[in-house]
Amino acid sequence: MEEVEAKVAEVELAADGGEKAPVVKKEKPKKAPKEKKEKAPQGPGKAGGKKEVKKETQLGISAKKDENFSSWYSQVVTHGEMIEYYDVSGCYILRPWSYAMWEIIKDFFDTEIKKLGVKNAYFPLFVSEKALIKEKDHVEGFAPEVAWVTRSGNSDLEEPIAVRPTSETVMYPIYSKWIRSHRDLPLKLNQWCNVVRWEFKDPTPFIRSREFLWQEGHTAFATKEEADEEVLAILDLYRRVYEDILAVPVIKGIKSEVEKFAGGLYTTTVEAYIPNTGRGIQGATSHCLGQNFAKMFEIYFENDNRERKMVWQNSWGLTTRTIGVMVMVHGDDKGLVLPPRVAPVQVVIIHIPSKDIDTKVLIEACKETAKQLRDAGLRIEEDYRDNYSPGWKFSDWEMKGVPLRVEVGPKDIASKQVKVVRRDNGGKDFIATDNIGASVANILEDIQKSMLEKAREARDACIVKVTSWDEFIAALNNKKMVLAPWCDEKEVEESVKERTKTDQHGAAKTLCMPFDQPELPQGSVCFSSGKPAKKWALWGRSY
Amino acid sequence: MEEVEAKVAEVELAADGGEKAPVVKKEKPKKAPKEKKEKAPQGPGKAGGKKEVKKETQLGISAKKDENFSSWYSQVVTHGEMIEYYDVSGCYILRPWSYAMWEIIKDFFDTEIKKLGVKNAYFPLFVSEKALIKEKDHVEGFAPEVAWVTRSGNSDLEEPIAVRPTSETVMYPIYSKWIRSHRDLPLKLNQWCNVVRWEFKDPTPFIRSREFLWQEGHTAFATKEEADEEVLAILDLYRRVYEDILAVPVIKGIKSEVEKFAGGLYTTTVEAYIPNTGRGIQGATSHCLGQNFAKMFEIYFENDNRERKMVWQNSWGLTTRTIGVMVMVHGDDKGLVLPPRVAPVQVVIIHIPSKDIDTKVLIEACKETAKQLRDAGLRIEEDYRDNYSPGWKFSDWEMKGVPLRVEVGPKDIASKQVKVVRRDNGGKDFIATDNIGASVANILEDIQKSMLEKAREARDACIVKVTSWDEFIAALNNKKMVLAPWCDEKEVEESVKERTKTDQHGAAKTLCMPFDQPELPQGSVCFSSGKPAKKWALWGRSY
Repeated sequence: MEEVEAKVAEVELAADGGEKAPVVKKEKPKKAPKEKKEKAPQGPGKAGGKKEVKKETQLGISAKKDENFSSWYSQVVTHGEMIEYYDVSGCYILRPWSYAMWEIIKDFFDTEIKKLGVKNAYFPLFVSEKALIKEKDHVEGFAPEVAWVTRSGNSDLEEPIAVRPTSETVMYPIYSKWIRSHRDLPLKLNQWCNVVRWEFKDPTPFIRSREFLWQEGHTAFATKEEADEEVLAILDLYRRVYEDILAVPVIKGIKSEVEKFAGGLYTTTVEAYIPNTGRGIQGATSHCLGQNFAKMFEIYFENDNRERKMVWQNSWGLTTRTIGVMVMVHGDDKGLVLPPRVAPVQVVIIHIPSKDIDTKVLIEACKETAKQLRDAGLRIEEDYRDNYSPGWKFSDWEMKGVPLRVEVGPKDIASKQVKVVRRDNGGKDFIATDNIGASVANILEDIQKSMLEKAREARDACIVKVTSWDEFIAALNNKKMVLAPWCDEKEVEESVKERTKTDQHGAAKTLCMPFDQPELPQGSVCFSSGKPAKKWALWGRSY
Repeated sequence: MEEVEAKVAEVELAADGGEKAPVVKKEKPKKAPKEKKEKAPQGPGKAGGKKEVKKETQLGISAKKDENFSSWYSQVVTHGEMIEYYDVSGCYILRPWSYAMWEIIKDFFDTEIKKLGVKNAYFPLFVSEKALIKEKDHVEGFAPEVAWVTRSGNSDLEEPIAVRPTSETVMYPIYSKWIRSHRDLPLKLNQWCNVVRWEFKDPTPFIRSREFLWQEGHTAFATKEEADEEVLAILDLYRRVYEDILAVPVIKGIKSEVEKFAGGLYTTTVEAYIPNTGRGIQGATSHCLGQNFAKMFEIYFENDNRERKMVWQNSWGLTTRTIGVMVMVHGDDKGLVLPPRVAPVQVVIIHIPSKDIDTKVLIEACKETAKQLRDAGLRIEEDYRDNYSPGWKFSDWEMKGVPLRVEVGPKDIASKQVKVVRRDNGGKDFIATDNIGASVANILEDIQKSMLEKAREARDACIVKVTSWDEFIAALNNKKMVLAPWCDEKEVEESVKERTKTDQHGAAKTLCMPFDQPELPQGSVCFSSGKPAKKWALWGRSY
C-alpha cells in the first residue's frame, strides 16, 4: 500500500512498462527560465523535419503504445496538455484541453436528462458519520476509502465529518422529508460535482484518481417498473456518450452480485475495453437501488389508496474516467487522437510560408477559410505562430489530437483549394474552398464514424467465447475478454478471482452479463464450477 | 463560538428577530406520512380564499420582512424551495429552484469570460500544507477557517491535507511551471467549483456558508497595465451580473488596506446593500495580486529582451451569495420576487375552472398560450394540478417569486385575451392572445427594469454624506451607509471599528472607496482622525 508522491515537477516515466505511477524528478531550483519552445528550429520547414524538432524540444511521445502502454499513456495525457501532475498523491489537474472535453460531455448529457425531467441541484460535500453508516452494505463498500475532516484551523471538530464518496447518504435523509405523497413522485435530481475516494491502488489520470468529477443522478419512483425503465434509459445515454461522442464501443450488461453497487438491488453497466492492456474498464453504471435505502432512510409515500408505501430508487453516475478511456482507445504513437465530436478544436488551420508569396496574403486566405468553417458551426483554431516551423506545428497539433489539419500554401490559393490531413488515419486530400464548410463537416463525420468502426473491430477481435477452464485461462493470458457459460454464483466468482490472481496481474472478474446473450445450448455447464450454467458472462482483467 | 446544528427536520425560526441561525426541531419518528399538501381545500376558489389556505397548509411566510428580517429570510428561502437545511452545520442544500438560478448566472458569466480569452480548467480540492503556507499574509487570512483532512478510512494520513478555501496556493506552483516565456502570457484560467471556509460566524443560507459554490479566475500577465485593465473588465462583468440579471444596484470601488484580499496588491469590489438590515454586503471581488504570489511561487518569464521578469497576477471570484443578495433585496411578505432574467420560470399559466366551461377546453387554451410564449423564448410553467384551488396556486407561485402569472378563465377565451398579474407590483392587466409572445416579453423587460429602479431608489435613499464623527454615528445607527472624507490610514479604520462595535451590532468598516467620488473640498479632514482627508470612503455595517 505504497503512496507515490507526485511532486510538482517534470515528470519522468517508469521505464519498465509496468502499471506503475510515474516516477518524478524534483524540480531543480530555477536559476534562469528555460525557454524550451523557443529553442525549436525557426523558419519554414517541412513535415520531414518533424523528428528532429521533436527530439530537440522533447515535446514528442517517446514511449510506444504497443511496447510500454503505461508510459505511453502518461506521456500522451501530459504532453497533450490534458493533465498536470500535482503534489497531493492521486489528484490531478484537468487542464483546459481536457476540461473542454468534459464540458462537451456534460452539455450533451445534461440536455438529455433534462428532457427526461431530471433537475439539477447541489448537495453538500460533507456527510455526517451518522448518515454515512446508516446503510450497512453501502458503508462497508465505501468506508475504507472515506476521507475524514477532523480539524478546522487549529481546533478539533466535535465529530469527524466525511467527504462524500458518493451522495446516497447525503441526499436520502432529505428525500424522506420531501416525499410524502404519490404526487411528489417521481423525484428526479442530478448533481455535477466532485467526489473523493481515498484509494490505495495505483492512481492513473482520469481512470483512477482520489478526487474526480462526475454527475450523480438520484431518483425515486412509486413503482419498480418505472425505476427499471429509467435504469435502462440512463444506461442508453451512457452508451451514447461513449459510442456517439467518444467513438468508444461499449457492451451493455448487468453486474454480478459480487460486482454490483454496495447496498443496491442491481447494477447495469457499459463496459469498454483497452486492447493494448487486455483489460476491461467499467464505463459508467446505472443502479436500481430497490428499496434498501428507502427502508433505512424511511422514504415512504402515500399512494392514491392512502396506503403507506416505500419508494423505489435509482442512482447513476458518469465520471471524467470517460476521457481516459477515450485516450486509451484512440491514442497512437504521435499522441492523442480525438473524435471530432469531443474535440475542443476540430480543425486547425496552418499556413505554409514560402518565398513565392507574401505571408500576409497567405494568412488572409487562412482567415477566410476559418470564417467559413466557423460559420458552418465547427470549432476552429488558427495557428499563425511565427516562431515555429509548419512541421513543428503539425507535430504539436497531432500530439493534441486535433481531428483535421488544413494547410494553406501559395499553390492552394492559386487553385482555390486547401490541403486537408486527417489525424485518425493520416489520409491527405485537397478540397475546394468553395462550400468548404459542408465538405469539412462531412469529413469530420466520416472521421467520427470510422474511429468508432475501427475501435469496434479491434474490440470485437478481443472477445473469445469459451466453455472450459483451460480455454478460459488461455484466452485471459492472451489479453482477451472471455465470454463463458456461468452458474451465476457468488462463491464461484470469488474462486475464479482467487485462481486467476498472479504476481503480475490482478484477478479476473465478471465485467458483466451482457444483455445481448448468445444462445445457451441445453445442458451447458459453468466453465469454472461445472454446475448448470444460467447465462453467458463476460470475464476479464480490468481497471 | 457556538456551533448550531441544523437537524434534518422541520425548520422553526428564532422569534427574537436577531441574526440567529434557525432553531430546529428534531423530526418526530414517522408513524404515518403526513400529507400536508393534500389537506388544502379542494375545488375552485378565488384569490380571496388565499389567506385561509395559507394558514391551513402552513406554506405561507408568517414573518414580516420589516419586522423580523432574519426569520423572514429563512422562511422565504425554505418555503420558496431554494434551500433545505442540512445536518452538517453551515452547509445547505441548493434545491433545483435556486440551482437553476446559479446555472443562469453561470451561463452568462462563463460566456462573457470566454470572450475575454479565459479558459476553464479544474484544479484539485486538496492542497498540501507546504503550498498553503507559502504566502504569509495569505495564509494568515485563511488559516483559522481551513478544514483539514487527517484520516482516510481508519488510517491517519502522513500529512494533513487542507480543503481549498480558495485556489491561489493550489494553482500557482503549477503556473511557475507553465509560464516560461512572454509567449505563454497572458495565462487566463477559471474554474467553477466548491470551496470550504470553516467560519464560526452565524451561517446564513447563500450569504455565509461553510461550503459554497463559486467561480475563481486566476490570470497572469507580463505587465501591470494588462492586469489592471482586466481587474476592471471583470469587475464590470460582476456589476452586470448584479444589475442586469439580478436587478440589484451595486457600487464599484476599491477596498481599504484592512479589507483587501490577504496577500494581494489591491482589491476592487461591487458592494450591494440591504436596506432592511442597514447592512452593506460585498457582492464580488476582483483582485490585483501584484507580484507577491509570483515571488513566493517563483512565477517568472523571459521577456522579448531575454530578461527574467516576474508576472503580474489577478484573481477574481463570484459566489452563490449573489442569489442571497437578490432574495434579500427583492423579496416581500409573500415570498420571493424574482427578476425575470434570473427566474427559472418567468411565466406561470393557471386555468380558472368554472361551471360555465369544460375544463379540457380551458386547458387547451392554456396550452396554446404556453406554446406561443415558449416560441418567444420564454421559460414557462403550466400548472394544471387539480387538487389545489387557483387561489392556492397563486400563493404558491407568488411565494416562489415567478415574475408573471397568466390566468385563463372562460371569459378570457371568449374575448381572446388573458389576465396577467405582475409579481413585482401586483399590477393586473388583460392582454390579447394575438401576438402574446411579444407582449409578455415586453412586460418581463419592464418588470426587470422597474425592479432595478425601485431597488436603486431604496438603496440611494440609504446613503448619507457626512463630514463629522457625530453625523457618522447618527447615520450608522439610522441603518445607513455613510460616505465620509477619510485619511485612508489602517490605524484609523481599526479605531473606527473599535469605537462602533456594540453588543448588538458588529463594527462598522469601510465597504469601499467608490470609484465614483464626489468632489473633495480643499482642506477636508477625516471624519474620524481629523487628519487631512484623501478621499471619500463608504462605511457601514456589513454581512
